[in-house]
Amino acid sequence: MSPPQPPAPLRVTVWSEGRHERRDPEIAQRYPRGMHGAIAEGVTEHLGERARVRTATLDEPEHGLTEAVLAETDVLTWWGQAAHKEVADEVVTRVQRRVLAGMGLIVLHSGHWSKIFTRLMGTTCTLRWRNAAERELVWTVAPGHPIAAGVTHPIVIEEQETYGEFFDIPTPEELVFVSSFAGGEVFRSGCAFRRGNGRIFYFSPGDQDYPVYHHPQVRRVIANAVAWAAPERVGAVPRLTHSAAGWFETAAGGPA
Amino acid sequence: MSPPQPPAPLRVTVWSEGRHERRDPEIAQRYPRGMHGAIAEGVTEHLGERARVRTATLDEPEHGLTEAVLAETDVLTWWGQAAHKEVADEVVTRVQRRVLAGMGLIVLHSGHWSKIFTRLMGTTCTLRWRNAAERELVWTVAPGHPIAAGVTHPIVIEEQETYGEFFDIPTPEELVFVSSFAGGEVFRSGCAFRRGNGRIFYFSPGDQDYPVYHHPQVRRVIANAVAWAAPERVGAVPRLTHSAAGWFETAAGGPA
Amino acid sequence: MSPPQPPAPLRVTVWSEGRHERRDPEIAQRYPRGMHGAIAEGVTEHLGERARVRTATLDEPEHGLTEAVLAETDVLTWWGQAAHKEVADEVVTRVQRRVLAGMGLIVLHSGHWSKIFTRLMGTTCTLRWRNAAERELVWTVAPGHPIAAGVTHPIVIEEQETYGEFFDIPTPEELVFVSSFAGGEVFRSGCAFRRGNGRIFYFSPGDQDYPVYHHPQVRRVIANAVAWAAPERVGAVPRLTHSAAGWFETAAGGPA
Amino acid sequence: MSPPQPPAPLRVTVWSEGRHERRDPEIAQRYPRGMHGAIAEGVTEHLGERARVRTATLDEPEHGLTEAVLAETDVLTWWGQAAHKEVADEVVTRVQRRVLAGMGLIVLHSGHWSKIFTRLMGTTCTLRWRNAAERELVWTVAPGHPIAAGVTHPIVIEEQETYGEFFDIPTPEELVFVSSFAGGEVFRSGCAFRRGNGRIFYFSPGDQDYPVYHHPQVRRVIANAVAWAAPERVGAVPRLTHSAAGWFETAAGGPA
Repeated sequence: MSPPQPPAPLRVTVWSEGRHERRDPEIAQRYPRGMHGAIAEGVTEHLGERARVRTATLDEPEHGLTEAVLAETDVLTWWGQAAHKEVADEVVTRVQRRVLAGMGLIVLHSGHWSKIFTRLMGTTCTLRWRNAAERELVWTVAPGHPIAAGVTHPIVIEEQETYGEFFDIPTPEELVFVSSFAGGEVFRSGCAFRRGNGRIFYFSPGDQDYPVYHHPQVRRVIANAVAWAAPERVGAVPRLTHSAAGWFETAAGGPA
Repeated sequence: MSPPQPPAPLRVTVWSEGRHERRDPEIAQRYPRGMHGAIAEGVTEHLGERARVRTATLDEPEHGLTEAVLAETDVLTWWGQAAHKEVADEVVTRVQRRVLAGMGLIVLHSGHWSKIFTRLMGTTCTLRWRNAAERELVWTVAPGHPIAAGVTHPIVIEEQETYGEFFDIPTPEELVFVSSFAGGEVFRSGCAFRRGNGRIFYFSPGDQDYPVYHHPQVRRVIANAVAWAAPERVGAVPRLTHSAAGWFETAAGGPA
Repeated sequence: MSPPQPPAPLRVTVWSEGRHERRDPEIAQRYPRGMHGAIAEGVTEHLGERARVRTATLDEPEHGLTEAVLAETDVLTWWGQAAHKEVADEVVTRVQRRVLAGMGLIVLHSGHWSKIFTRLMGTTCTLRWRNAAERELVWTVAPGHPIAAGVTHPIVIEEQETYGEFFDIPTPEELVFVSSFAGGEVFRSGCAFRRGNGRIFYFSPGDQDYPVYHHPQVRRVIANAVAWAAPERVGAVPRLTHSAAGWFETAAGGPA
Repeated sequence: MSPPQPPAPLRVTVWSEGRHERRDPEIAQRYPRGMHGAIAEGVTEHLGERARVRTATLDEPEHGLTEAVLAETDVLTWWGQAAHKEVADEVVTRVQRRVLAGMGLIVLHSGHWSKIFTRLMGTTCTLRWRNAAERELVWTVAPGHPIAAGVTHPIVIEEQETYGEFFDIPTPEELVFVSSFAGGEVFRSGCAFRRGNGRIFYFSPGDQDYPVYHHPQVRRVIANAVAWAAPERVGAVPRLTHSAAGWFETAAGGPA
């Protein structure tokens, strides 16, 4: 066995629509470098040299998610809200294939209704909501999970958009966080999925109307999720394979 | 194939400690026929002739759970709070074996800390609590699950003991309900498990200090759970089995 | 409470491509009433008057799956192999919505690669295969599950197409059967999923080249699956819902 | 944020009965440093300086698992076969508590019937078996899982004891491997569980009668499992906690 090498830094692409911050001065003041900027900052803050973070937004060519960018992305984070329909189907298919090949995907807040998330889930991904500046408490229900490492119990977010059940998703492979809101709703706010060779984490806190992506604990969770979703290596999309009997006896063998 | 027979009625045994109601006049007034009486009533109310319900309590010989009683029980419901330690280990083992053989088990409220539940779970089954007459909202997170059939979303319970996470249980095979409490806590209040040939459902609403077992929706959930946990037939406890190669080719074949 | 009514019969639609049997005399001899005919026969054999079974095939108008037919279908079974691409996207969307609203869906054998299954799963649903008349053994890994009720352990199928892992599906909510094949492959052959208000079961045994749908145990599993997937009632597709604070206090309350 | 520190090496304790190798010359020749020696070697081979490995065996005082040893153990691996009953209940309780507090536990082969595994699972953990030198194929069913990283698909083990279903365990939180055996049996051979703050992995390959712990791929899986089971930090055993309303507003906040 060769000695373990220092691992190469994780290549993270932080994606968001990037429009609210340009159009609405209040949001621009809250997120002067964009929500993607705040999210990227939080990842760097926690992962330091373990990650190399770049951002991409909707209005770039191919939404900033060209084949070349995805080929160099180990984990993609996704925030969208008002312009889900403007995301090109071709890019959605490209991202989906990359996830099935192994790229990690972190879907944030209103990204629950993005094309890429509903495509990967197969359900409507709808939920109950209101925007009433209610307090959100994020409770850990899987304390041994790496995404919960170092996270306070509960995370207290003073003001947030309210999300409530029923959240129409497949049963998460791992349920990490459940939130309550001042109005009484509950929401499965931290949900881990495996699809193909890839890992997906949905995390609901975060909104353009509240400074949630500056919250130290929210940043910690997102950074933990990025680290957790990192693949050993991104391989190929699973495909239909014809195999003769006994193929494995002579084959060198490879991954599943 | 023979034509389907009218199914035999489900044999349900409702167990509780049966002491609070004898010692505390206020509780006696709330539950004149005991908490077991109220729970049994709710099951009968919903399942009618589909179930034959009896009750058993701690201070009966062998806690009312003799081999004979268990042999005639398809689903057992369990409520305990103050006297978990008084339940004989021999009876716990007997119930555990019956569950693994296929008997359904519905564990209610403070039964989370009973010997039988912690034995079957392998964890501490501890949680966070306070008794402050807070409003509990029980939200369905698995609307297609039979235990949620006909249940309002949310169930509103005006006053309840508060339970909160972290609830130290194995990940439920199916999470059906999540509650919020007025104080902000959340709790996985409806959890389904499979163990051996048996099915287990934990449902947290219900307490000696509040009339929760008279709540129509709580009764509906418990009745649904009893119906869901009913085995096709109670078979044998799984056991270590030595099998010669090809045993299945000549065997008549039987259940797993 | 009103006394329990005799339940209305389950409305089952058995769908298949219906082409192999018309084109290939050998297959026609094996399945003189079509594969759909054999499957329908097996369901009726086991569920008797509890089910009312009809069939539909690809070449009927709208593939026999009009809005009207789906509105009267509680459980749909799906067999496809050579003509997945010919299924109209509009019909796929219609079936998907009906499943999310609560209709049960049983996907059989090569239906793993159908549009409706891959749409609901969000993954490629690809696998490893060869057609070599190998013996398949279907082992129960969830003996308490209703779909395994009365099923021998293992089911021995003398000749079958071989399917092997990796099967690119989301982790099933419940894994009921795992198969081995004479050549050494294993396959998760019985997988239960919940999506929206609906239940989905994938069962891999069955092929046009082998008389698998005449196998008594295979028929039993399919009939069990149909009964398990039956909804309490088919409701609405989940949708994005705006709710004012405290909406549940005054609302009559309804399903999730 | 402080810059990330080089992580402290993982403290691994490899436990086995350590008797077969002393009593049976053939086994001694196969495993000259004991099975624990071979297992420890494999972990070191893969994790190198990331792990500090020691061994402990049944006949040491307190089976080599004193409070002091466990306090310095991040991950414990367990192999037992003939002497499960000789393990002191006090030590079992000690290990169980340490797992619930966060220590990783890797249970190997016939360890399925150990006191510690059955205690943590709550079921009989029984299975079907024969000792007939059959070929085992270990198939990956969760290719994105860290325990499957770099593992061939399938792992081919020329001769092994045969294990078959039904394996009476709770549904694993994550099913990573499924094996087939030449005789036709299948077995869920790689099963991940979370209990309390700790992670548990059961891996079935390995036996005193076959050189399985010298198999490069088996060693890789065990090393991967050790790395996966490593806790961020071992905390406290979950316990019943009384909390006043609003406790989280003033508390500094801590882990769940």
